[in-house]
Amino acid sequence: MSSAPPPGRGPKVRAAVLAAAVAELGEYGYAAFAVDNVARRAGVHKTTVYRRWPDRDALITDALADSVAAEIPIPDTGSVEDDLRALADGLVSWIESPSGRAVLAVMLPNITDQPQPPAGVRHVFRDRIRRALPIVERAVARGELGPGTDAAEMIKALVAPIYFRALITREKLDHRTAEAAAQLALTAAHAGLFG
Amino acid sequence: MSSAPPPGRGPKVRAAVLAAAVAELGEYGYAAFAVDNVARRAGVHKTTVYRRWPDRDALITDALADSVAAEIPIPDTGSVEDDLRALADGLVSWIESPSGRAVLAVMLPNITDQPQPPAGVRHVFRDRIRRALPIVERAVARGELGPGTDAAEMIKALVAPIYFRALITREKLDHRTAEAAAQLALTAAHAGLFG
Repeated sequence: MSSAPPPGRGPKVRAAVLAAAVAELGEYGYAAFAVDNVARRAGVHKTTVYRRWPDRDALITDALADSVAAEIPIPDTGSVEDDLRALADGLVSWIESPSGRAVLAVMLPNITDQPQPPAGVRHVFRDRIRRALPIVERAVARGELGPGTDAAEMIKALVAPIYFRALITREKLDHRTAEAAAQLALTAAHAGLFG
Repeated sequence: MSSAPPPGRGPKVRAAVLAAAVAELGEYGYAAFAVDNVARRAGVHKTTVYRRWPDRDALITDALADSVAAEIPIPDTGSVEDDLRALADGLVSWIESPSGRAVLAVMLPNITDQPQPPAGVRHVFRDRIRRALPIVERAVARGELGPGTDAAEMIKALVAPIYFRALITREKLDHRTAEAAAQLALTAAHAGLFG
């Protein structure tokens, strides 16, 4: 196998380093995040990490963006109600996952903490909303929702009660949480609150 | 004035120390909170602080509970719509105030941070919801809302979109945010989603 990539350069290394970065963030948060610890956890030398990511913020941004894109499926069942319920269920599961903990650990402390997370990380949540907009747009195209429905407002109404329970009241999240969130968003949309 | 309290024991000292504690939390967060800095900010000796509060967690819990109780007015206008709008407006203002920043700074980082905030602090948000329940209960008594309306669920639906914008999407909060939150909660209540 003389054509194999040299150690430290294959896609497996990239995946291992990004997964290690997500795990580190979930356990220790943004302020304590160190490239050395990520390298140790991934089983590679830290120069291997620095060869691909010039600094810790570049690594964090890449790790979270990859993780979010891979782990939040955008449903397309043909029914807006089923899509919203599936999206809400996915969010409930994600919040308790290593990736969810990592993203929230990076995003939330920064009201007071220094250093501040990089701008790329702060866009992770907006990107997630953007990726879910087709759920509403397809429902409008099918005639399930009114033509003026603001897709971003509707998706935010869907996810807000879930984040609120996870972060503020610290309630247990389950399928009923997701179901209630979907019903709330649908009811508001049918009442014309999003357009 | 021989009956004046000795220095360091009057209600003014208590108020000054609690206000200094809130300001410290809002600026530096929970992990960096130090009684010495609070004493310096309040212009009292640290033994004066320790005489009233045995440890920093007791001081933090007292400071946040007092601050929240004083700064979140619970409206009673005679109309559930006006009450909800006023409560949402109050929340929008509070989130940007020193007290709001202090409470959120203590509550949110603790997904990963050590030490963990005291249990008393974690109950601050639940206490706030509990204090707002009469808005819904009075509306039920007046016949504006159905008799089975779950007051806590309705208040949570009102405030969730506001916290979500403040913490997750970092949007600007204004009167329109409050108005939309009130309409969402009312529409959902009239559709029977809270009972």
